[in-house]
Amino acid sequence: MTTADTLTTLGERETLRRIFPRLPRSRHELLGPGDDAAVLAAPDGRYVVTTDMMIHGPDFRWGWSSPNDIGWKAAATNLSDVAAMGARPTALLVAIAAPPDTPVVRLLGIADGLRQSCEVLAPGCGVAGGDLSVSATFTVAVTAFGDLEGRQPVLRSGARPGDIVAVAGPLGDAGRGLRLLFERALDQAGRPDTALAAALRAEHTGLIEAQLRPSPPIAAGIAAAIAGASAMLDISDGLALDARRVAEASGVIIDFDTVALGEFPEAALAGGEDHGFLACFAPDARLPTAFRPIGRVRAAPSASRSETGLWLDGQRYDTESGWDPYRGWDGTSDASAHHSVVSP
Amino acid sequence: MTTADTLTTLGERETLRRIFPRLPRSRHELLGPGDDAAVLAAPDGRYVVTTDMMIHGPDFRWGWSSPNDIGWKAAATNLSDVAAMGARPTALLVAIAAPPDTPVVRLLGIADGLRQSCEVLAPGCGVAGGDLSVSATFTVAVTAFGDLEGRQPVLRSGARPGDIVAVAGPLGDAGRGLRLLFERALDQAGRPDTALAAALRAEHTGLIEAQLRPSPPIAAGIAAAIAGASAMLDISDGLALDARRVAEASGVIIDFDTVALGEFPEAALAGGEDHGFLACFAPDARLPTAFRPIGRVRAAPSASRSETGLWLDGQRYDTESGWDPYRGWDGTSDASAHHSVVSP
Repeated sequence: MTTADTLTTLGERETLRRIFPRLPRSRHELLGPGDDAAVLAAPDGRYVVTTDMMIHGPDFRWGWSSPNDIGWKAAATNLSDVAAMGARPTALLVAIAAPPDTPVVRLLGIADGLRQSCEVLAPGCGVAGGDLSVSATFTVAVTAFGDLEGRQPVLRSGARPGDIVAVAGPLGDAGRGLRLLFERALDQAGRPDTALAAALRAEHTGLIEAQLRPSPPIAAGIAAAIAGASAMLDISDGLALDARRVAEASGVIIDFDTVALGEFPEAALAGGEDHGFLACFAPDARLPTAFRPIGRVRAAPSASRSETGLWLDGQRYDTESGWDPYRGWDGTSDASAHHSVVSP
Repeated sequence: MTTADTLTTLGERETLRRIFPRLPRSRHELLGPGDDAAVLAAPDGRYVVTTDMMIHGPDFRWGWSSPNDIGWKAAATNLSDVAAMGARPTALLVAIAAPPDTPVVRLLGIADGLRQSCEVLAPGCGVAGGDLSVSATFTVAVTAFGDLEGRQPVLRSGARPGDIVAVAGPLGDAGRGLRLLFERALDQAGRPDTALAAALRAEHTGLIEAQLRPSPPIAAGIAAAIAGASAMLDISDGLALDARRVAEASGVIIDFDTVALGEFPEAALAGGEDHGFLACFAPDARLPTAFRPIGRVRAAPSASRSETGLWLDGQRYDTESGWDPYRGWDGTSDASAHHSVVSP
């Protein structure tokens, strides 16, 4: 194969033949790719399912992300949704829609990223099947599965007054990384610039990789469930917005200590794409190692939406932040500077 | 709500609030939409999974399909992959990526189509979760789940010499419908024309609906498994190509009687998107009602790919047909007449 091979020149069958050996296998796979559907084991009679898309333009840009980064992140963000239920990730389905002139090496790079992400973040999880389609917009849609291993799923609605609120994983780094990319890795026409992004990544590796190649603490989600977490979610749209979701679903107030939010509390609250876990634990629970306390659950005067919500240091915090995909992006697929970064 | 509401003006939260009540519920749902992931029941300790995308341009055009049609077809094509394993469809995840200026009524129409498709084709199956994203290209990615109810999955590889080859569902109608649309429902600029498509649909309802709103015989797939089918697949890329897949996977020859292929045997063989089932049964099996015999499985001199394959009336049939998405489409998202229809 040469790097000039595209989906059109190689065709679907040969492309798939080259992708398959690079994909990780799932330990739960009873029947893998190649038939109309796969068959997976559900040892405890239940399974956890979630799906999330990565779209060229709003979610990634070839100028900033390598194919390997994209495969890695597509797996990682779905693995974190599974682990946020307290389940162990078992398998992925990966549907890719690509323009016909896409170089096949891009797909192989994505397959490598998917494999490495599973191997590092969720050993035993693998790709059990997928779909390859044509689209004008490069799209990766991942569905992820998990095994509750006999435990009850950890919902957003279980937080109780008195609970400790804790997080695992960095807060705000991914959002700060995205802001840096938009500030310093666009060319003069406002397009993502590969050389500028590479220089930025060398200088601010932690922040840029938190954005382009996140490593959610998957094992911590499972550990939280084992430790009896009362509520948990994946912090994907910013800590403040996601904490409000837990508060509202549970009918409580979540009160953060700002000193516990680190050096940049505003960036931590606005965040976006952190993909760590926000979890609540009974006051006498022993927190799993990866978690650090950042606040308390308090009783709300009533369960109405206006009474529940987020407080900071004992004061109501109503600042709007967080990510609504239909309001924060201008709809072009070339991901120009018009993208309005959620302000950290 | 007015029809002028778009994803941008309404926002993600309010849009989802309006979609949810329209979605069907799954009888296997233990935890539905609203958390990081859903939880589904797997009564026999296994579950079947498949995923398939529908992309604006190559897979559907707003000028020809209503939102309801698109939701219906997105569910139907995935349900048929589940049933082709002999499993009963239990649940769907639906990820939609849409341009921000998409009218919200389109999403509600898709939700209605998903619900009606499940109610008619697979009662008890429902939407357990999903994702709403932004894209320049309207994309629907469905993942479907199924319950084997204690049976073994029916693979492509189980056909044995002497087996009866049978099909359930129409052959070639969807391909003929697509050809009609490209011949008679494009405006002078080569774009899909709504009025022309409506007139065509009134005149050739069966062929056009086979393409835009297919009704795979889901119950027949399950019945085939119960009747002991040795091999089965969903006929999605044309009967000839799909029969070759069974022949190759099973190391056999599949020999069709052309008289059994109906009035238009070439259209039946080239087909595309039929979404019926091709199944093999032992010679003494009692075929489920929906199936009609169309040929026999014969022993191949060896299992090598060159010796297995498709015969017609006792003669080797090597005509290439069937659908490779990367070769049959020019990559534009406005689905113009450049789309090369697979010739029936």
